[in-house]
Amino acid sequence: MTFTVEDLQTILDEITLAVTALPAEGEVACYIPQLAEVDPDQFGIAVALADGQIFHAGDAQTLFSIQSISKVFTTTIALRKFGDDIWKRVGREPSGDPFNSIVQLEMECGKPRNPFINAGAITIADTIMEGRTPDELMEEILQFIREIAHDDSIQIDKKVAESELKTGDRNASLAHFMASFGLFENAVDDVLWAYFNHCSITMTCEQLAKAALFLVSDGLDKSCGVNVVSEKRARRINSLMMMCGHYDGSGEFAFRVGLPGKSGVGGGIMAVVPGKASIAVWSPRLDKVGNSYLGTLALEMLTQRTGWSVFGH
Amino acid sequence: MTFTVEDLQTILDEITLAVTALPAEGEVACYIPQLAEVDPDQFGIAVALADGQIFHAGDAQTLFSIQSISKVFTTTIALRKFGDDIWKRVGREPSGDPFNSIVQLEMECGKPRNPFINAGAITIADTIMEGRTPDELMEEILQFIREIAHDDSIQIDKKVAESELKTGDRNASLAHFMASFGLFENAVDDVLWAYFNHCSITMTCEQLAKAALFLVSDGLDKSCGVNVVSEKRARRINSLMMMCGHYDGSGEFAFRVGLPGKSGVGGGIMAVVPGKASIAVWSPRLDKVGNSYLGTLALEMLTQRTGWSVFGH
Amino acid sequence: MTFTVEDLQTILDEITLAVTALPAEGEVACYIPQLAEVDPDQFGIAVALADGQIFHAGDAQTLFSIQSISKVFTTTIALRKFGDDIWKRVGREPSGDPFNSIVQLEMECGKPRNPFINAGAITIADTIMEGRTPDELMEEILQFIREIAHDDSIQIDKKVAESELKTGDRNASLAHFMASFGLFENAVDDVLWAYFNHCSITMTCEQLAKAALFLVSDGLDKSCGVNVVSEKRARRINSLMMMCGHYDGSGEFAFRVGLPGKSGVGGGIMAVVPGKASIAVWSPRLDKVGNSYLGTLALEMLTQRTGWSVFGH
Amino acid sequence: MTFTVEDLQTILDEITLAVTALPAEGEVACYIPQLAEVDPDQFGIAVALADGQIFHAGDAQTLFSIQSISKVFTTTIALRKFGDDIWKRVGREPSGDPFNSIVQLEMECGKPRNPFINAGAITIADTIMEGRTPDELMEEILQFIREIAHDDSIQIDKKVAESELKTGDRNASLAHFMASFGLFENAVDDVLWAYFNHCSITMTCEQLAKAALFLVSDGLDKSCGVNVVSEKRARRINSLMMMCGHYDGSGEFAFRVGLPGKSGVGGGIMAVVPGKASIAVWSPRLDKVGNSYLGTLALEMLTQRTGWSVFGH
Repeated sequence: MTFTVEDLQTILDEITLAVTALPAEGEVACYIPQLAEVDPDQFGIAVALADGQIFHAGDAQTLFSIQSISKVFTTTIALRKFGDDIWKRVGREPSGDPFNSIVQLEMECGKPRNPFINAGAITIADTIMEGRTPDELMEEILQFIREIAHDDSIQIDKKVAESELKTGDRNASLAHFMASFGLFENAVDDVLWAYFNHCSITMTCEQLAKAALFLVSDGLDKSCGVNVVSEKRARRINSLMMMCGHYDGSGEFAFRVGLPGKSGVGGGIMAVVPGKASIAVWSPRLDKVGNSYLGTLALEMLTQRTGWSVFGH
Repeated sequence: MTFTVEDLQTILDEITLAVTALPAEGEVACYIPQLAEVDPDQFGIAVALADGQIFHAGDAQTLFSIQSISKVFTTTIALRKFGDDIWKRVGREPSGDPFNSIVQLEMECGKPRNPFINAGAITIADTIMEGRTPDELMEEILQFIREIAHDDSIQIDKKVAESELKTGDRNASLAHFMASFGLFENAVDDVLWAYFNHCSITMTCEQLAKAALFLVSDGLDKSCGVNVVSEKRARRINSLMMMCGHYDGSGEFAFRVGLPGKSGVGGGIMAVVPGKASIAVWSPRLDKVGNSYLGTLALEMLTQRTGWSVFGH
Repeated sequence: MTFTVEDLQTILDEITLAVTALPAEGEVACYIPQLAEVDPDQFGIAVALADGQIFHAGDAQTLFSIQSISKVFTTTIALRKFGDDIWKRVGREPSGDPFNSIVQLEMECGKPRNPFINAGAITIADTIMEGRTPDELMEEILQFIREIAHDDSIQIDKKVAESELKTGDRNASLAHFMASFGLFENAVDDVLWAYFNHCSITMTCEQLAKAALFLVSDGLDKSCGVNVVSEKRARRINSLMMMCGHYDGSGEFAFRVGLPGKSGVGGGIMAVVPGKASIAVWSPRLDKVGNSYLGTLALEMLTQRTGWSVFGH
Repeated sequence: MTFTVEDLQTILDEITLAVTALPAEGEVACYIPQLAEVDPDQFGIAVALADGQIFHAGDAQTLFSIQSISKVFTTTIALRKFGDDIWKRVGREPSGDPFNSIVQLEMECGKPRNPFINAGAITIADTIMEGRTPDELMEEILQFIREIAHDDSIQIDKKVAESELKTGDRNASLAHFMASFGLFENAVDDVLWAYFNHCSITMTCEQLAKAALFLVSDGLDKSCGVNVVSEKRARRINSLMMMCGHYDGSGEFAFRVGLPGKSGVGGGIMAVVPGKASIAVWSPRLDKVGNSYLGTLALEMLTQRTGWSVFGH
């Protein structure tokens, strides 16, 4: 359970070796054709310590589609702009349902259970759009992510966005469903396009680990001394990731990994060890609830080796 | 955010003063007649530090019905006896449904989502009964709780158990429903009687805080150097409390309090600050999802004053 | 489409020959062990014309367990005793759900959708019990059926009733669930025992066809000139059979057969051609929604040969 | 219960007098703004006898929006073109759910329960579109209705269609939801536009009663000796109307009126007395499940006066 920072590189190398040696399990997300073209057997991991040091192994510098991980960033933007008012439109309870279920929405009159299920993230996109065009909103979202990651090269993969739009009937259904309760401020098609775009942002594990550092340090970006969000809000974003970050596998992730984290169907997972480190891991094959198969396994191994868990000391 | 242990008594006293001065909100659980007779305006809080020091304020030495908090103890017993085999009969995902919903059970063929909803706890009772009588099982459960609390005086309130049995149609329905899938090893009526009995155990805040100390110290009972459960298992019990400990208000509790915890409709909440302290709080009036109204508020104030939260540092 | 009464015997013989020549399809109800012991390949059919003439073919004089067909008789008794007051406790809409689903009950606060699903029939049993013992209630039910069938030999098969009780967890769950809404007037166990008993009444096709004649003649028992129920009520019982008589296969039965009817998992179906005839058919193998496979087919053939359908002229 | 054709005009006049004298109950459908502008207190009724004679009273010659009644015509067109193949895409069981529920669709993988709920009718529109434009499809639908009603003046109210499109998020959600299962052959927006258009056809009670005559006479249009559909198919369309014609009030309509019928949120109801007559009634105020309040009442009175019911003789 004890390890020194010097050991970290060795640990990451060993984990990478171990998980990539396993027989392939799980499938790449196939409902977005563009994502299905990715080489499924890649694996990368990056750890950013609270002091800014970065360690990585495997394909940690390969760009991948961050997909639902982007929901952490749009929720942060929404909290910065509207504070607790966002909870009028979206809840903060785990959903207990497959990630794109429409049943719960009907039961609860169009109010999504949390900002990390699809319906919730679409609602957040509507909330922060404020009458602007999807392009204008995307400019703001990209700008925010570039700032917290300290990297101006971060971009949207427009081919993925278009691929998602073409096969996006389920999300269109969710959006029109919520709009039917009179809950939308912007045109449904505009909100959907913005949503598909922010899901199509591409980042590397290294960029993602850096972008998450403000959640390690109670909201503070230590590299420049700027508060991205307040301490209280940073902790609450972590609590949302813990409770709702892995669709209907959130309990399983808490049980096995013990850290706040957010996964995406592109195969990425971003996790936070409060006070200590942020972690990004990526491997495209998914388990049956939509979370990276090797990514989860690697995080489980990492937390066992390091003792990192919010549930122990 | 910084405080010394010396401040702790002052903090507890101030919190007690503050919350008891508030106008009464919420109602005492009324579906169990015996519980409805409790004076609704009591409030107690106790903190046990990892080193064994105890601080308390208010009605911390008054006995109350621990109700669903007992599920943490029966789950621990089940894990000690059967290890990961228990996950064949019960899941570990938040339920996203009111605490006694039968809908989810139908969807998932009689397998409860987690051991802390009623159906899950009844399943755990069936698992650990092993052909014995309810009285024999209760002997074991009481024995375990007395050991970890280091207090042989802990008892069952038989009047409450009988009151629950009389009004227990919903739980009887859940039990027969699961039995209809062929999932029960013991007679339904015996399992129900054991379940109503362990929910009717009475403890004080002080006893409860002490009983939770093994979850603070990665499974170790420091007072006697005995491992109640392994480190890994202690962390996993904490993760279950975080994800599923407050019925359909688990997300809210994580968001506001930021600690693993388990509530009961008797008005008690048991919470864990890994490595630092265990906390027990009690006040009978409940919010609309069934968690202690003042108890949650007091924990929120306490974590703000102490900085205790697993989501920050 | 045209046929004379003289043809009827020929038609029944031909249908019997045709359906018994088919390869066996469907399974006997297996969740009630006693029913599973029946020879699955029996087939009987009986037609009672409005004037009292009886025609039959196959095993029309073999006793079988009428199961849910008994719900028509208990509902008739309830309507005779309490009139439209029964609709306070049970609805009259098709359920659109498998026949023993508990989900709908939760959505609608313990009020079953109609008197022919299990929950509804259990509610009817509670309604007509009126503080009596199950034996006293059964005496009344048997007496009523013997009167309308003009046959004092009709009995309960106690072995089947006991078999149902032993495997009746699903029905016990439904009953306790409804009781949890405070909706029961008698002890749950008594009501269940009465319910299992009236489902275990045994009759022949011939007896059943005779018993249904009052529904052919707008409520009148022509053989003795007595009104079993009023014209309006007879029509309404027929409408309930049409809308709800075949569990989640009611639409299919209306579509293929076009007559009001009620099936039971013992393999029987009782159907009504208003103004013309009543029909009883029996064959133990069931389709996947729980209705007699050959029974439905025979009724479809019969209505095609005779032109009997309420949806044409 | 006995009446002569000569009495029919008197009966209709008396019913009209009686129902229009009642205090107003129910509300006009408000979710389609254009429909909300209709004078809510109109009432019309028309009866077409099998021999072609027409009787009417009240506002029987005022045009109104037929809305869901159009689903009977599109289903008939689909059956004429594709026969029983349509049952691969749509079921024939009552839905047991509010008329636009999406929950059932999720449970049953995007296959609507029957062609008369919104999802089912949208599926039928997709089925009969066959790659054509919405205008081309509408031309065919209008042509069919004009033929069976023998009236070339029947039109679409484009203002209503546009009003429905603007507020049609719920239907858009249903359509995209089904499309997400890969079940759509045409563009979702085209299918929706066709659907909104055929719901916006306007007819009078007189036209509607005439259009339904083929369902009275086993599929035959007696005025010209043409079979609109086969006898078997006409009976099956009647059975669908009986089982599914009034949303979640189908059981109630069968219970009170006892005839196959189809209602629309414009306040119209079309009903069939096999072999005898077709009836159209219209009054805009709706009961809580969406069926015409006075329309249902008038039909109940009419069937009591005439003895018309498929459940008696």
